Amino acid sequence: MKKLTIAVDAMGGDFGPSVIVPAALQVLAKYDNLHLVLVGNQEILQNELKSRPNSTNSRLTIHHASQRVEMNESPALALRGKKDSSMRVAINLVKEGNVQACVSAGNTGALMATARFVLKTLPGIDRPAIVSTFPTVTGKKNMRMLDLGANVDSSAESLFQFAVMGSVLTTAVDGIENPKVYLLNIGEEDIKGNEQVKETAQLLANSKMINYMGYIEGDEIYRGDADVVVCDGFVGNVALKTSEGVALFMKKLIKEAFHRNWMTKLVGLLAFPVLKTLAKRMDPGQYNGASFIGLQGIVIKSHGGAKTSAFAHAIEEAIVEVEKNIPQRISDEVGRLLQVTPIGKDKTSDDPQKNPLN
Amino acid sequence: MKKLTIAVDAMGGDFGPSVIVPAALQVLAKYDNLHLVLVGNQEILQNELKSRPNSTNSRLTIHHASQRVEMNESPALALRGKKDSSMRVAINLVKEGNVQACVSAGNTGALMATARFVLKTLPGIDRPAIVSTFPTVTGKKNMRMLDLGANVDSSAESLFQFAVMGSVLTTAVDGIENPKVYLLNIGEEDIKGNEQVKETAQLLANSKMINYMGYIEGDEIYRGDADVVVCDGFVGNVALKTSEGVALFMKKLIKEAFHRNWMTKLVGLLAFPVLKTLAKRMDPGQYNGASFIGLQGIVIKSHGGAKTSAFAHAIEEAIVEVEKNIPQRISDEVGRLLQVTPIGKDKTSDDPQKNPLN
Repeated sequence: MKKLTIAVDAMGGDFGPSVIVPAALQVLAKYDNLHLVLVGNQEILQNELKSRPNSTNSRLTIHHASQRVEMNESPALALRGKKDSSMRVAINLVKEGNVQACVSAGNTGALMATARFVLKTLPGIDRPAIVSTFPTVTGKKNMRMLDLGANVDSSAESLFQFAVMGSVLTTAVDGIENPKVYLLNIGEEDIKGNEQVKETAQLLANSKMINYMGYIEGDEIYRGDADVVVCDGFVGNVALKTSEGVALFMKKLIKEAFHRNWMTKLVGLLAFPVLKTLAKRMDPGQYNGASFIGLQGIVIKSHGGAKTSAFAHAIEEAIVEVEKNIPQRISDEVGRLLQVTPIGKDKTSDDPQKNPLN
Repeated sequence: MKKLTIAVDAMGGDFGPSVIVPAALQVLAKYDNLHLVLVGNQEILQNELKSRPNSTNSRLTIHHASQRVEMNESPALALRGKKDSSMRVAINLVKEGNVQACVSAGNTGALMATARFVLKTLPGIDRPAIVSTFPTVTGKKNMRMLDLGANVDSSAESLFQFAVMGSVLTTAVDGIENPKVYLLNIGEEDIKGNEQVKETAQLLANSKMINYMGYIEGDEIYRGDADVVVCDGFVGNVALKTSEGVALFMKKLIKEAFHRNWMTKLVGLLAFPVLKTLAKRMDPGQYNGASFIGLQGIVIKSHGGAKTSAFAHAIEEAIVEVEKNIPQRISDEVGRLLQVTPIGKDKTSDDPQKNPLN
């Protein structure tokens, strides 16, 4: 088995080391070939490790970083002012080739700004995107949606690039050939939608390399027809977060329905195993770990509020992307599509002039 | 009690007269002062009425219209080519003052285009919006969101006008003074969001007449903090439809969890009353009836797939707006705010030149 080394920003997220350290230990126990580098305040991390059983593991090292990016900090300020933050140092480790990926539950804006600044985008890619996996009603097939918030007011060219990246990722990770790509819109008719969406539809329809299926509306994204749903980051972020809001709302309704009186509570007690299965299937933690795609390196973003098993899932997402060599595959595909030189083929390959879409 | 007269586009929606006629009869039985005008093919409607018990009602009349706008028809074609459609005739009845409002479950784009063309916007309002009521986790307080799809790429001025209209509607219908207005965005920090959203935030913060509370994210809109959530129609439509998609998904998960084997089915049988209450609280039909706001007249849009009780709710929404005199109240408020002459005050009041925001 090939050795895997992944850096973990141990200070990020709403809970920091108290969630991230046990998550790291959990994943290490599962993968024999995995090495994790916990990046953060050495003293705090050592104490956190000491308080845990079975925490001496030769495949776990601490890399000291003196600063921490706060969850509500301005990305620009974090980028300029916190050059020794756990987030920045973890990304630097990717850049320097010391690790193959990094995972952070920290401030999304700061993570994206720093990752983009340090790692740079792939040749031919104007803007990175945030992509994540979503469940569908089919129970088997998942769906990927991008962008989930890295960009606002995305151009048609950017949306087209998101479609390419989403397709490559789906083929590489799930082995689906010619994944079905849909464009999120507010109506299926050609007349609807804004200008960028209409223009993107043209680009996608004309591309032989994308299996473009047409428009999709918000109520259809979870149906299981789509493998990849493409949208602007503002729209995608609203769709993602609204979904989270509705799911929480529904959970509360279920709880309330079974807590109305002693009779319903008794029924709830009997229904406990069913409700437990239900809660498990509804748990968003099993999909935790969004990928910052389009960069010259693998950066996985965990939900800030992730608990141990959810953060562990984000680390596993990083493992998959390392094993599947995602950035190289995207770079190769984009290179073929846009006639730019992929990474690793030419020293001047990250010259943005070579992208005909620029 | 004041006499109420409302026109119903009896041919619209996925189910047409078979749903709309019984819904009309249901609402008529509830309101003694209500008169309904069913607009559509006379023969079809008479046959539909004959097949129903207790369908002879002196407060129900049929107004013949020879055409029908199809659900997937181009709005522009419907507007130009179907001047005797049930939809167009129902809106004409509003314009001519024969009825006080109209309700349709037909093609949203065609309904909006026709309503805007026939009725015109209120003085000071550039674009009408689609607004609807949403439940919140509080179980008591509702929330209104606009625009839900009438406009894409809304300007800051339009978004500001949506905020005014949403506030007036909430005060008039729910009696909430200074309703809390939020702006949908992808982050609470001032740095996030697109240009229009940032500009709108400035306009709202500077307005003394709007109780502007700041940005809100998708996962927070159902929490019950906001009375009014303002967004562009593309974003709002995605949020609305994604919510519908997630709710359906959750319902399916619940059903599956109780149908896994004979044991869970037995528990489901015991839990039946609880699950029934739950289904009732989850039913989107109880919120059916979106308002086309900002027009010189009341137009209520029902979900195309609405069943009888949901369509009946849309008619009741029209009744509330007539009783509260919504267009006049919005016009008065906008007049105060933008120094334009409200409707009914001046014959030249719909001169767009008078709107300082134009």
